[in-house]
Formats: sequence, structure tokens, C-alpha cells
Amino acid sequence: MASQVEKAETFRTLHRGPRPLVLPNAWDVPSARVFEDAGFPAVATSSAGMMVSHGHRDGEEMPRRDFLAAVGRISGRLEVPLSVDIVAGYGRSARTVAAMVDRVIRSGAVGVNIEDKLPDGSGLYRIASQVRRLAAVRQAGTASGIPLVVNARTDAFRVDPGDEASRLREAIRRASAYRDAGADCVYPMGVTDAASIATFVDALRCPVNVMVRPGLPPLAELESLGVRRVSFGPNASYAALGLLKRVSREVLDRGSFDLLLDGAINFDELNRLAVPRGSPSA
Amino acid sequence: MASQVEKAETFRTLHRGPRPLVLPNAWDVPSARVFEDAGFPAVATSSAGMMVSHGHRDGEEMPRRDFLAAVGRISGRLEVPLSVDIVAGYGRSARTVAAMVDRVIRSGAVGVNIEDKLPDGSGLYRIASQVRRLAAVRQAGTASGIPLVVNARTDAFRVDPGDEASRLREAIRRASAYRDAGADCVYPMGVTDAASIATFVDALRCPVNVMVRPGLPPLAELESLGVRRVSFGPNASYAALGLLKRVSREVLDRGSFDLLLDGAINFDELNRLAVPRGSPSA
Repeated sequence: MASQVEKAETFRTLHRGPRPLVLPNAWDVPSARVFEDAGFPAVATSSAGMMVSHGHRDGEEMPRRDFLAAVGRISGRLEVPLSVDIVAGYGRSARTVAAMVDRVIRSGAVGVNIEDKLPDGSGLYRIASQVRRLAAVRQAGTASGIPLVVNARTDAFRVDPGDEASRLREAIRRASAYRDAGADCVYPMGVTDAASIATFVDALRCPVNVMVRPGLPPLAELESLGVRRVSFGPNASYAALGLLKRVSREVLDRGSFDLLLDGAINFDELNRLAVPRGSPSA
Repeated sequence: MASQVEKAETFRTLHRGPRPLVLPNAWDVPSARVFEDAGFPAVATSSAGMMVSHGHRDGEEMPRRDFLAAVGRISGRLEVPLSVDIVAGYGRSARTVAAMVDRVIRSGAVGVNIEDKLPDGSGLYRIASQVRRLAAVRQAGTASGIPLVVNARTDAFRVDPGDEASRLREAIRRASAYRDAGADCVYPMGVTDAASIATFVDALRCPVNVMVRPGLPPLAELESLGVRRVSFGPNASYAALGLLKRVSREVLDRGSFDLLLDGAINFDELNRLAVPRGSPSA
């Protein structure tokens, strides 16, 4: 099994490969292991997916200790690199964020997502503040000896006032500062149309992450636009729970279990997803 | 919100209603909350679903403390009754099982499933032993002041040697003893054909639980056979992870995100599933 340093290096390389990195975000051990078994070269967590699975809304309400335990459960059962969405870093100060990143790395992560949205919903961290926080993330990676891959998300395009063009300019301004502060990849949340993506990619000239959502161009077009990383975000949770809603309607309205049973895995497959792929008991 | 005693009484009544109780088994908070929102009058946990979600195979490998924490997260966010699959009781002795049941009740459960299969896979508990263990479960409920609903599962039909007829006779013999020891409902794992179900129900004359699986008669036929409770077992986990397998193939083989996005819930719906249905923030 690859060391954590090797996994981090592999993960970094995937951002510069011949094709964009498609990164599926999981919420628990078996959702992560299904993605690994399917052939994804790396897996990420979805903050919303993982937190809601544990009974907390997306944000920083889930206790840090429980969050880290959940990360450790997933990383301990994956052979591929794991990147972790740490929301806005679980703290305001650069020092608090650095301590969180250190613990996330100790929990097995080789990459993190960190956003500039204030957890209380009151807007964004000031650029200078977010730059200090990102520098601390970078430094925490260096101090740990793991070449951590940092994906800096900006919510300016969604949260800032003004028209679309000015919001895109602000997203570019922020992402450029985050790149210069040491981010390996930047992630303009909410930028989904081809023209805006192209403008953003051309301005940044570093790996850019976009999230799957309705209306996003297909993968081949994203590749031609220069996107280097496409993440699921919470969509796998949305899809699985949408399926359970439909299953429920079919059972309650029609007394039929067909949808529940259709295309399902079985008991042995489920149990194999609890343990690392290469383990003797898998 | 109903008290735990009221929830237990409601859950018991559902086993004697005009229609069979269909009981969906969840693995985490949002899967449980989706079932509640859809209108199921009670929800259960799946041991396999919940344990694998936390990185443990089905059985009794998941630490008791983590198991109870997971139960508490789910029960704390449900308004409907929650029944918990405690596998074979997390211990051999009647005293250990009683202590586990007490803690499961304190974690919010109003019903338990307990099986007679030895966790090491070496067969079944002897009938006399399982009867003592069930009497201890019953007594733990009484001592807690919660009118706990006990569903006694026997694996005789799947595990015992002999032909089908002799295995069905052994399942009936065991379930009858468990009923007489105080079980409210009995659950012959693996009995799925109409004739065997009818024989079993006629012999027991108490509420009988069957699990959804391919080949099980449809709900209307189960009702006419006298079945009082139909549980999903781990099928919701199987279905959700089966969907993620198909999503993965579509993304990796065809670069398409259509299946990931099709029929999904959204961010606000997901976040509402983290908190109780009636809470102001839901």
C-alpha cells in the first residue's frame, strides 16, 4: 500500500494528467469504496454529504472530533488518495485552521478543500484574511511532511453583490490571490457556463476545479475549456437519497419492492466495502 | 413530540393494524429521515447498512460505543418510532445482552431485533440459551420503563442442516420458543416462498416479520398470508450503492453526469434531513 507521501504525490500528478481528474465525493466508507472499486484514481469527501449523514447541517456544526473520526474511517479503508472538504477550515484564525489541517492530515487526507465563505452565512472572509489562512494551510502541509494538495474554493460568484460580470471578476481576483498564496487548484463555486469557465481558466493559468451540477457542460467540453478537475460535490448523496424517496413512494403507494431491489448490490459486496480493497478478508 | 413510551406503544400497535407494517431500514440520519418524510410510520436500522457505513462488516465488530452513538444520532432526529437491529445482542450472556438493550433504549430505540446466529459464524445459539437471552431483553425493557417491542429472528432456516422441510420445522420450533419467552414478533430469516411463509404464520399465531428480497411475494400477497411486518433489511444500502456503481460507470466510461443528477434531491433538502422534521431550522 502506498505511503501517505506517495498518495499525495499521486494526487498532485492527477491534476496535470492527460485528462481532467474526475473526483467523486463520498459521505461514508462504502460510498468511498464503491468509487475506488469502480476505478476512480482518487476520492474526496463531501462536507454536506458527510455531515448530514452524521446528523449535522453542512457548515462547521459537526464537532471537530467527530469530523476527524469520520475522515479516519474513510481514509483507513481506501488505497487511493483521499481529499477532504474542510469547509472554511473549522476556525477563523490562521493558527486554528493550521491545527485543523494538521489533524486532517493525521486522519489520512492528502488533499483539502477550503472555502472563503463565512460559516455564519454573513458573506466572505476578506481576501487578506483568506490569503493568511491559505498560507497557514500550505505551511501545515509542509510541517507535516505530506505534500498536501490544496484546493482553494471561492464563493464570490455566488455570494458577492453585483452583476454576473463583476461577480466573475471578483471570483478571478480572489482565486488569483489564493493561487499566489500557495493553492494548487482553485475552485470557483457556481461558475457553470462554458463562457465563464473559459474566462476563469484563462485568467488563472493553474488547475481549476468545477463541480458537477445541472447545466454544466459535459466532461469532454470541460476538458477543451481547460478544466483540470471536476468534482461531484454532494451530488452522490443527492442521488442516493433521491433514489430512496422514489423507492419509498413505490412501496407506500403501490406495495411494490421492485425499485428497491433493482440494480442493487448484495450482502457480500456490501461487507467487502467495509474493509480495504486489498485486505485478505475483502 | 411523542415521548419514548408513546413511541413504543405506537410501534407495538403498528404490528396489529389493518395492514402489514412496512419497516424501512436505514443506515444513517438522512436515509432514516427520508423514510420518515415519505410517510413510513416507523423506521428501523439495518445492522449491515449501519456498520458498513462506519467501516465495519456486519456482525459485532463495530465497537459498542460507536454503535450506540450512531443509534443516538438517528433516534434524535426522528419523530417516528425507531427499532434497532442489535445483531445477536453484542454478547453471549443474558446479562451482557440486557445491558446492551438498556443502552440501546437509552439511545432512543423503542424496538430491537435480536438474532440467534452466533457472531463467529459457527451456527446458532442453543434454544435454551437464546430463550434466556430473550427473557433478559424483555426484562431490560420492563426495567427501563419503555414497553420495548422485541423482534426475535431465527436463522435456523438458513443455517441448520437438513432439507427444507426440516429446516422450516426447526425455524418454527425456535420461533415458538422465542415467542413464549416474550418476543412480540418473530422473524424467520430466509423464509421467502408463499407456502413456507403460510406454514410458518399458521404455526406461530403471533406477528411475523419477513424481509424484502428477490422472489418474495408482493405486499398484497404477504398480507393475505398473514404477515404482519415486512422489513427492508439492508436493501436500501444495496440499492444506494448499486446506484453509485452505475453512476461511476457512466462517468468513467461515457463522461456523462446524467445518472448522477437524475432524480436527485438538492442542497436545501439534504440539509433539512440533518435535523428533526418539526424543528424550526428544518
